[in-house]
Amino acid sequence: MNDGPESDYSSKNNYNYKKEVNLKFEEAVDKVKENLKEESFGVLTEIDVKAALKSKLNVDFDKYVILGACNPSFAYKALQAERDIGLMMPCNVIVYEQEGKVVVSAIMPTVAMDMIDNAQLELIAGQVEEKLKKVVDMM
Amino acid sequence: MNDGPESDYSSKNNYNYKKEVNLKFEEAVDKVKENLKEESFGVLTEIDVKAALKSKLNVDFDKYVILGACNPSFAYKALQAERDIGLMMPCNVIVYEQEGKVVVSAIMPTVAMDMIDNAQLELIAGQVEEKLKKVVDMM
Repeated sequence: MNDGPESDYSSKNNYNYKKEVNLKFEEAVDKVKENLKEESFGVLTEIDVKAALKSKLNVDFDKYVILGACNPSFAYKALQAERDIGLMMPCNVIVYEQEGKVVVSAIMPTVAMDMIDNAQLELIAGQVEEKLKKVVDMM
Repeated sequence: MNDGPESDYSSKNNYNYKKEVNLKFEEAVDKVKENLKEESFGVLTEIDVKAALKSKLNVDFDKYVILGACNPSFAYKALQAERDIGLMMPCNVIVYEQEGKVVVSAIMPTVAMDMIDNAQLELIAGQVEEKLKKVVDMM
């Protein structure tokens, strides 16, 4: 039933860039926040998915947090290039537990925004993506 | 320089579903929240973009708010179908002022998640999309 890290972490759907980390869940969340700061992202939102699902549906889910990261300069440029791009902000980085492993995964803006036909936005998305990859690589 | 509502609100890029409303900005935000509640969405996050840009970059931007909406049951199903889908949660609805008009715009999950090859997720995205369209239509 366990299909192992090889298949689990392949990038079939490369909207995400992820890594299994050798940290406890809480340590991983702290480290992601440090890395985001280093790459000039602020954390605008934090959603505790496990707590929300417990409170709303009374179901037990793995530890799972959604951090909404935003680099103000890039966000400002993106909003000027594409007024509705707030629909895809902030850029999420998630940390979760799965089968005893801790995984960090970041959204890849060039893939997530690929359906928007806007060359200027594409450039900005590419720059933000490089920074988000670093956040994961530094784990 | 004003290309008017016809071109401005065409759905060239249909990742968004939007409508110009005859309400003041603050009233529109309140009405969106009511409509979201009616369609069983909770508002998990709220980002005041204008305030954030003023505070971080000291620039003046139009009134612009990002509401992060989540329907717990659909979110739970989506997370079970696609573990990393938290990267695209919550579903955003934005309200902003532009040239004296107030616009409400919602993300269209089937478009935003189109790059993910997951039939089960596609079904869920379609159901959430219908509800988000209602939220905008009820404005």
